[in-house]
Amino acid sequence: MAELFKVLTLAEARAAIMSHLPAEKTGIKVPILESLGCRLTADVRAVDNVPAFNRSTVDGYAVKAKDTYGASEGIPSYLDVSGEALIGQVPAGRVDTGQTWYIATGAMIPAGADAVVMVEYTEELDSRTIGINRPVAPGENVIRRGEDITAGDIALPASHRIRPQDLGLLSSIGVTEVEVTRITRVGIISTGDELINPLEKPSPGEIRDINSYILYGAVLAAGGRPRLYGIVPDDYDKLRKTLARALDENDMVLISGGSSVGARDVTFKVIDTAGKPGVVFHGISVKPGKPTAGAVIGGKPLFGLPGHPASALVIFDVLVAPLLRDGAYPATEEESALEFPVKAIITRNLHSAAGRKDYFRVKVSSKGGQLFAEPVLGKSGLINTMIKANGLAHIPAGKEGVEAGEIVDVKLF
Amino acid sequence: MAELFKVLTLAEARAAIMSHLPAEKTGIKVPILESLGCRLTADVRAVDNVPAFNRSTVDGYAVKAKDTYGASEGIPSYLDVSGEALIGQVPAGRVDTGQTWYIATGAMIPAGADAVVMVEYTEELDSRTIGINRPVAPGENVIRRGEDITAGDIALPASHRIRPQDLGLLSSIGVTEVEVTRITRVGIISTGDELINPLEKPSPGEIRDINSYILYGAVLAAGGRPRLYGIVPDDYDKLRKTLARALDENDMVLISGGSSVGARDVTFKVIDTAGKPGVVFHGISVKPGKPTAGAVIGGKPLFGLPGHPASALVIFDVLVAPLLRDGAYPATEEESALEFPVKAIITRNLHSAAGRKDYFRVKVSSKGGQLFAEPVLGKSGLINTMIKANGLAHIPAGKEGVEAGEIVDVKLF
Repeated sequence: MAELFKVLTLAEARAAIMSHLPAEKTGIKVPILESLGCRLTADVRAVDNVPAFNRSTVDGYAVKAKDTYGASEGIPSYLDVSGEALIGQVPAGRVDTGQTWYIATGAMIPAGADAVVMVEYTEELDSRTIGINRPVAPGENVIRRGEDITAGDIALPASHRIRPQDLGLLSSIGVTEVEVTRITRVGIISTGDELINPLEKPSPGEIRDINSYILYGAVLAAGGRPRLYGIVPDDYDKLRKTLARALDENDMVLISGGSSVGARDVTFKVIDTAGKPGVVFHGISVKPGKPTAGAVIGGKPLFGLPGHPASALVIFDVLVAPLLRDGAYPATEEESALEFPVKAIITRNLHSAAGRKDYFRVKVSSKGGQLFAEPVLGKSGLINTMIKANGLAHIPAGKEGVEAGEIVDVKLF
Repeated sequence: MAELFKVLTLAEARAAIMSHLPAEKTGIKVPILESLGCRLTADVRAVDNVPAFNRSTVDGYAVKAKDTYGASEGIPSYLDVSGEALIGQVPAGRVDTGQTWYIATGAMIPAGADAVVMVEYTEELDSRTIGINRPVAPGENVIRRGEDITAGDIALPASHRIRPQDLGLLSSIGVTEVEVTRITRVGIISTGDELINPLEKPSPGEIRDINSYILYGAVLAAGGRPRLYGIVPDDYDKLRKTLARALDENDMVLISGGSSVGARDVTFKVIDTAGKPGVVFHGISVKPGKPTAGAVIGGKPLFGLPGHPASALVIFDVLVAPLLRDGAYPATEEESALEFPVKAIITRNLHSAAGRKDYFRVKVSSKGGQLFAEPVLGKSGLINTMIKANGLAHIPAGKEGVEAGEIVDVKLF
C-alpha cells in the first residue's frame, strides 16, 4: 500500500490536505469567547455604527471650532462654560456660539459643538469662564459616528481567523455568537510496543511514552484543545478502535507512529482503512520527518507523525500547527515568508541533500544588535536537542547546505 | 495620590513589578500536563538514564563493528543471522564474532554487538546469511545508555519555564508532577459608566464593552486562563469588592480603566487601597498607554490598563504577555532583543517624542524576500487599526522617529 505513494514536497503535502478538507461553507455557532483561532464561515456585517454617536477622544471642552480661531496664549478665546457632557449620558442642551461644555474622554459631543479642545490648552478664569490658548479644526479630538465601523459594512470577511482584537470588534457591534469552522479539538494517540506510561518503571527494552506529552503541550501552545488516548500497541484492531473513537470526538487526530518499519506499517494500514477519502500522502521530502503520513477522514485531518520525538515536533510545527492556529496553510509565497520571519546568522556549515527541505533546531541569541543561530546538533533520537534549542531554521529544498555566516530563516518557539 | 508617582520607563515599570513578586521559592505541585508555561521552583534531576539501555536508531543489523571493517559493495562482509532484536524486548542471546542480529529502530542492542548497519547497506543471501556493503564504526547508529540524559544530572534547572518539549523530557525520566510557580489564571474587570454588555443595544451615549473581550482573547493567546468579572461602574465600593474577589480567585488581575480622568482616578484609588505592597508605578513613558498603573497585591500582579482598546492591547503585549508566557520579563538586553525579533523596512516616516517609547501597529508583508512594515495609523480610539495590523513595531526611547526605508523591530501577532 505505502509504496503506491510518491514522496511529496511539504507544499504538495499541505495542498493535498487542504484539497480534501471541506470547503468552509457549513460551520457551528459558538459564543465569541469560544471562537479564538476559528474561521468565519460568512461575512460578518455591522448592524450599528461604531461609535453610535460623535465621541470625544480627550478630556477637555466641546466647542464650535470657529470660536477658537486665532486663539493663542497671548490672546485666548474666552468662552462661557454652559454645561458638562458626562460619560454614558446624552448632553441635555446644546453649545451655542460663545459657549463651551466640559467633556470627558468617551462622552457624547453635545449638539452645536464640532470639536474638542484638550484641557491642557485651556485655563479656568472662574467657574463659568475658560480661556482657550490654541485653535482646533472642526472634527479635532472627535471620533465621528460610524467613523470606526459604518453600519452595513463588512466588519470581518468570510474565512477570517478570529484573533483577540477581533473579539473586541465583534463585541463592539453587538455580535456575541459567530458561525465558524474549527479545528481545535485534537486527539493524540501514541503507538509502539516498547512504550509504557511515564508513571511506570521501564523494564529493560521498554521506554516511557514521550510523544503524547510533547504533542499535548504543542497543541495547547498552538491554541488547540488536546486529549490523550494513551498508548496503543502495534496491533491493527486495537489501533483501529482507538482511532475511530478519537476521530469521532475531535476535529483532528495525531498518531505518533511506532519507530520501526513494522510498527509504521501497522499504523499506516489503520490510517489507510479508517475512512474516506483516506490517505492523501505518505512520505514527504523533509528532514527530519520523511515517514509522515497525512489523511483526511470524514472531513477531519489525521496525521501519522514520526516516532522520534524531535522529528514529531518538527512535523507538528510545519504541518499541524498552521492548521490549528490558522485553520489553513499560507496560500501564497508572501504569506509563507511570514512562517520563518526571523533572520539570523548561522554559526556553522550545514550540509543538506538537494531536493529535500532540511529543518534544524537552533539556539538564537542576540549580540551587538545582531541575531545568531547556533545549530543544536545530535543524533535524531535524542530529546536533549529539543531542550537546548529556542528556534527552528530551515535550508530550502533548492540548496545543498548553508555556510557559517550566511543568513537563515528562523521561527522562534 | 496619583501625583506622587514619577512616570517610569517600560524597563523600570517591569523591574518595579518583578522586585515585588515573591521570589520563586514556594510553589504548587501540578501534574505535568497542567504545567505548560509555569516555572519550576527547583532543579529537576533525572533518576534514571535515558535511554535506559543501548538503543538502535535505525532498522538494520546489530554487529561487532570490527566484523564490518573493509566491507564494500565489491567485497561484502558475510555474517550469520543468529537472532532478531524486537522492540520492547530483551534480546535472548548475544552476538558473537561472525554473527549478526536483525534489529528494529528503538530496540535494545544485543550483548556483544557495538554498532548497527542500516538495512539499506545489507543484502540478504539466504534466511541465515547477509552481506554487508559498508563498514560501521563502534557506536554507529546506537544511542548509548544515558547518552541523552544521565541519571543524577539536572534535567531542567530551577526557574526554567515549561515548554512542550520539556513535557517530553519530564515524561522520559518518569516525572509526572512538578512544583511550579504559576501566573496563569487571570481575572479581567472592565470599568466605565458608559459601558454595556455587548448583548444589549446601546442607548445614546453608551458603548458596548470591548476590552473584556480583547483581553480574554489575548490572555488565551498568551497561554493563560482568563475569567471575566464583567463591567463595574466607576464606583469605589463596587470596584473594590469585585477586585477583592478577582484577586482571590486568580494569579493576576487586569482592570481596564475608565477612559476619562475621573474614572481613572476611581480605578487608581481602588488599586492603591487593595493591599500591600500596592501600587508600584503609575504612568509609563510609552505611547500609547501612558496612564497604565501597576501594582502587586499579596504577591499577585495587578495592572490598570488604558481604556482605549488599542492602547490596552499594546500594554498587554509589552507588560502582561511576558509575565503570562514566561513568568518573568527578559533579564538582559540580549533576551529583550528576542521580544521584537523580526526586522522589516518601514514604509513611511513616523515621528516620536524623544525619551518616550512609541509603539505602532503595522501590516507586515513580504515582497521579493524582503519584509515591509506599513504603519496602520488612525485616531487612538479606533478599533479598526488593530484589525488591519498583524504586527507591533516600536521606536526606541532614544530616537525622535524613523524615516521611510529604515529597518524597524517588529513582533508579529
